[in-house]
Amino acid sequence: MPRYRLTIEYDGRGFVGWQRQKGGLGVQQALEDAAGAFSGEAVTVYGAGRTDSGVHALGQVAHLDLAKDWPTDTVRDALNAHLKPHPASVLAAETAASDFHARFSATRRRYRYRIVNRRAPLTLEAGLAWWVPGPLDGAAMAAAAPVLQGHHDFTTFRASECQAKSPEKTLDELRVEPAGDEIVISARARSFLHHQVRNMVGSLALVGEGKWTAEDLAQALAAKDRRAGGPTAPADGLYLVGVDYDESVGGQ
Amino acid sequence: MPRYRLTIEYDGRGFVGWQRQKGGLGVQQALEDAAGAFSGEAVTVYGAGRTDSGVHALGQVAHLDLAKDWPTDTVRDALNAHLKPHPASVLAAETAASDFHARFSATRRRYRYRIVNRRAPLTLEAGLAWWVPGPLDGAAMAAAAPVLQGHHDFTTFRASECQAKSPEKTLDELRVEPAGDEIVISARARSFLHHQVRNMVGSLALVGEGKWTAEDLAQALAAKDRRAGGPTAPADGLYLVGVDYDESVGGQ
Repeated sequence: MPRYRLTIEYDGRGFVGWQRQKGGLGVQQALEDAAGAFSGEAVTVYGAGRTDSGVHALGQVAHLDLAKDWPTDTVRDALNAHLKPHPASVLAAETAASDFHARFSATRRRYRYRIVNRRAPLTLEAGLAWWVPGPLDGAAMAAAAPVLQGHHDFTTFRASECQAKSPEKTLDELRVEPAGDEIVISARARSFLHHQVRNMVGSLALVGEGKWTAEDLAQALAAKDRRAGGPTAPADGLYLVGVDYDESVGGQ
Repeated sequence: MPRYRLTIEYDGRGFVGWQRQKGGLGVQQALEDAAGAFSGEAVTVYGAGRTDSGVHALGQVAHLDLAKDWPTDTVRDALNAHLKPHPASVLAAETAASDFHARFSATRRRYRYRIVNRRAPLTLEAGLAWWVPGPLDGAAMAAAAPVLQGHHDFTTFRASECQAKSPEKTLDELRVEPAGDEIVISARARSFLHHQVRNMVGSLALVGEGKWTAEDLAQALAAKDRRAGGPTAPADGLYLVGVDYDESVGGQ
C-alpha cells in the first residue's frame, strides 16, 4: 500500500489535542475520518508529535497508508475538503517510503512558544499566545535559557502523566528572542517529555519576573523534581513548528 | 472636562463594525458602555476610522471626555476591565488637548491588507486574512500598485453607500509586499472612501491572477465608474494599523 506523508497545520482551539480520545475531537480522528470519507477505507493516521488540547501546529507531520496510488495533490485537496469545518489543514501531501514512520523516524521536533507581554488584554491574539500583563525581562530570560540546553534529566519539567521511559533528553536549542511586546521561545530536540516546553517556559517566566535567577533555574533542573519547577505555561502560546527527518531514514 | 485619547486594538469578528448601530454591538458602543460603567457618565466616543463589520484594528484612535482628571493608566485599565468579554482592548490612554478630535484632527490613516495565497485552507488565520487558493503573482501586483498612488477621483473604488462629499482623495502610498505565501498591501492617505482599500485590493488581485494588466488598472481608475472596478476584497484581511496627527493640531 502506498504511504503518504502529510504536513498539517491546525488551530488547537478546535480540538481536544492530537490523539483520538473520548470526550471530543482529536486532530488524528478528524484526519482519519477525512481519509475514510475520501478513500472508503479504515485509515489510521500516525502523528509525529502528540500535541495537547489547545496546542497549535504549523507543521505537524503524519503518515497514513491508502490502497490506491493517488496523485499527492488529490490526497491533499480531498483531505482538506473532508476536514471542513474543522480548523485543520493539510499543507502538503507527499509519497513516503514504506519504512517511513512520522513518529519513529523523526530526528528533530521544533516548537515555538509565544508570550505577549503587555498591560492590555489580547484581542486578535487571544488563544494564540500567552498573555503576561506584568513586566518580563526578556533579556534575562534569554541569558538564562542556555542553562537548560544539552543532555539532562528533565524530571523537573516533566508532567506526572508522562509516559516516556526515561526523563533524560537532549535539548539541542532553547532560545529566547524578545521582539517588541512579544517574547518568542524556540525549542528544538529529537523528542520532548510531556509538557516539557510549557514547563520550561513557566520557569523561564519566573526568571523574566525577577523571581528567579539563572542559578535558580539551574538548581531547579538539578533537583530532578517537578515540585522544584515553575508553573506550566498555558497551551495557548505553544506551536509545533516542524518535524525533521534524516534523508536516509524513510525520507524523500 | 479633560479629554482622553485612546489607542485601541480589536478583532473585527466580535463586532458589527466601529459605529454604534442597531442589530449588533459596535466597537464604539462597547467603549461607551465601558466608559459609562467606569465613570457613571453618559460618554460619547469619537473614532478616527469607521471600520466595517469584520475589519480589524491594531491602532484605532478615539477620544472621549470625562468629568474627572483620572490617571491615564486608570482610564486604560478600567476601560479594559469593563470591555470584557468583547475582543477590544485599550492599548494606551493619554491626555489630549481640548481641541483634539480623533476623526477631524487626523492627518493620516494607515491600513494593511493581508492575503494568504496557498492551496490549503486557513486555520489559525481564518478570519484574519483573505484566503486566495489560486496562484497570485505578487510581483505583478507590486508593479501595478503605483498606478493608484497620488491624487485621483477614486469613484471606481468607492462603495455606493459612501457618504464622502467628494470622490477625490490623495493616496500617499499603496505598497504590495509578497513574503512567503503571504501578500501584504499597505495603504496610507489622509482619508479613504468607503470600501476604498478593499476595492483597490480586489482589483489588484485581478492583476495578480493575470486577468488584468497594470494598464487595465489605470483604465479602471480613469473610468470613474464602480462597475469598471474589480470585486470588493473580504473584510477578513483588513487592519486599521494606525492614525497619525500633526503635533501642532490638538496633539500632546
